[in-house]
Amino acid sequence: MTQNISTTLSTTIPSITSCNPKYLVEARRHLDDLTKPIGSLGRLENIAAQVFSILGGDIKFPMHRGAYIFAADHGVTEEGVSAYPREVTVQMAYNILQGGAGISVLARFHHAELTLVDVGVDTEFDSAGGLCRAKVRRGSRNMHLEAAMTHEELSAALDVGIRMANEAKDKGMTLVSVGELGIGNTTAASAIAVALTKKSSDILTGPGTGLDSAGRNRKRQIIEESVKLHFGDLKDSIDPLEVLRCVGGLEIAAMTGFILGAAANQMVVICDGVISTAAAAVAYAIAPNVREYLIAGHCSEEPGHQYLLQYIGLTPILGLGMRLGEGTGAVLAMPIIESAVRLFAEMATFSSAGVSTATE
Amino acid sequence: MTQNISTTLSTTIPSITSCNPKYLVEARRHLDDLTKPIGSLGRLENIAAQVFSILGGDIKFPMHRGAYIFAADHGVTEEGVSAYPREVTVQMAYNILQGGAGISVLARFHHAELTLVDVGVDTEFDSAGGLCRAKVRRGSRNMHLEAAMTHEELSAALDVGIRMANEAKDKGMTLVSVGELGIGNTTAASAIAVALTKKSSDILTGPGTGLDSAGRNRKRQIIEESVKLHFGDLKDSIDPLEVLRCVGGLEIAAMTGFILGAAANQMVVICDGVISTAAAAVAYAIAPNVREYLIAGHCSEEPGHQYLLQYIGLTPILGLGMRLGEGTGAVLAMPIIESAVRLFAEMATFSSAGVSTATE
Repeated sequence: MTQNISTTLSTTIPSITSCNPKYLVEARRHLDDLTKPIGSLGRLENIAAQVFSILGGDIKFPMHRGAYIFAADHGVTEEGVSAYPREVTVQMAYNILQGGAGISVLARFHHAELTLVDVGVDTEFDSAGGLCRAKVRRGSRNMHLEAAMTHEELSAALDVGIRMANEAKDKGMTLVSVGELGIGNTTAASAIAVALTKKSSDILTGPGTGLDSAGRNRKRQIIEESVKLHFGDLKDSIDPLEVLRCVGGLEIAAMTGFILGAAANQMVVICDGVISTAAAAVAYAIAPNVREYLIAGHCSEEPGHQYLLQYIGLTPILGLGMRLGEGTGAVLAMPIIESAVRLFAEMATFSSAGVSTATE
Repeated sequence: MTQNISTTLSTTIPSITSCNPKYLVEARRHLDDLTKPIGSLGRLENIAAQVFSILGGDIKFPMHRGAYIFAADHGVTEEGVSAYPREVTVQMAYNILQGGAGISVLARFHHAELTLVDVGVDTEFDSAGGLCRAKVRRGSRNMHLEAAMTHEELSAALDVGIRMANEAKDKGMTLVSVGELGIGNTTAASAIAVALTKKSSDILTGPGTGLDSAGRNRKRQIIEESVKLHFGDLKDSIDPLEVLRCVGGLEIAAMTGFILGAAANQMVVICDGVISTAAAAVAYAIAPNVREYLIAGHCSEEPGHQYLLQYIGLTPILGLGMRLGEGTGAVLAMPIIESAVRLFAEMATFSSAGVSTATE
């Protein structure tokens, strides 16, 4: 483990236990007694069984939903890795708070309480409804020149995420999503993907918010050089927290903390696109039980996303070619997830409804 | 065209016009001005543009949603083509009306007004809330021996569907789904798929509600023989209404009428699994403009479904391995569809939010 590890983190990790298998058995038995052909709800059955297990059989409707967006700037934007200028992080943060961003619309429509957590945006925000001010630093350091965070900055960012998960639990939330905002953060996420999956930067680097092929090539080179600077040829095993610290970002570290904290608190946590899934991959590498609490909302168009999902072992719910970030694909999966749980809880059984079973 | 064609049908078909292309142009322009990278909402952008066009630019929230289930029995069940006994159609109809079926749960959760339309269930229902009694005959005829419907029965069943679409329009509905209930109806749907797509019964026949491989083989044989009885070697072109009449079913014909009627009334109509998509394929073969009004809610596990979707040219929204029917996969897509339209209508633009655009 890395030096100066956050004490919050070291108490959180042991709390992430595997779900009691009795709930999965009970869920499967109940699903097969519902008035439908066996297995005919497809993946909705797996989702219902997973949620039933995470919540220890204690399901309440409506599920209390929270959508968390972690925002930060990235030192690596100095290298010209994004189609948008760095100022867009601040501008989009205000757009989110004012209700005009994609995630604002979806969170409102799907009744998810939206919280924008500033872990490292390069500005000073006044307090505002829906904003949590928890800045660690005005942007991470340039990973192409040095580690993106010091050990202390990493610990502080992880702690922000864990604290938000604890607060979500205290509010009674059962279904939370994690998304992000930060110009330059597909570069950091792709670098994490390279370091964890050991696949080439060429297949893991995408256009982000909209680079052309020359821009994408420049980005790929920055990712490759950054990974080499910190981890050489990737032959040795690497501490996942060092991956996060050296080529991650403040909002990615906070998301890792949030996901670990959500699992420790027995909440269902939905990851979104390539960046939040990079955070989930680090969380999984640190504490493999975290996978039992994770649902992948969708598979984005960003090429590294599918490899990170495979690394964790997650099958996404939606595949609509989205690549907006902000947690939009995660919140969009909420009605599907709650539908699965409602079917599980509210459908009649063969005996209660007097329906004949299959003739065998 | 078939003899004795319903006069309602002959007035409905000419009303199914192509959407005015100006709405698609306007929608595209608006989508590109929203505070997101160009195209980053993926297929949600196409869905929003389609709905905007269908509704002629007149979007109101919440979208007024209706879930229609057409139910009938099938003469071909005499041939032993289903894992469940015929009585299950009646039993499940009561389960739907009492709120315990999968579609009952989903319609309730997603605020879709549920209507079960009896076009041909082999029982006499008392009147009940949510039930529309429009029986044409207590079950279709056995297509393995004779045409599933007479010309008059086909016309009457088509008219039921058109009438339901007109009533949905009168209620102010803008987003309607179409599903079905009827033991034996994957056999009819697969036979329609064979006749329309000319693909082999082997690749188009699935397990339905849960046949084993011997049962599936028997079913495949019945499908093949039925198609051969009515249409020989499929070398000649076939009137799609004759396909519907000879190897369809009463609820499938009513769904065809409903889809045509929904398109004629400028409503967004969502098809569900292989059976409602077979109805949609017949509607498309009769009136190709119908495709502009159709959305495929999901792709089911039933093997013929993907081929019918390809035949029409539809890309499904969800792919969750469902095969329950009842319109469940269609209603489950409603929150995704409305999300797309809400994003379109409620997101800020770059200029209104003061967000910088991509650096070019």
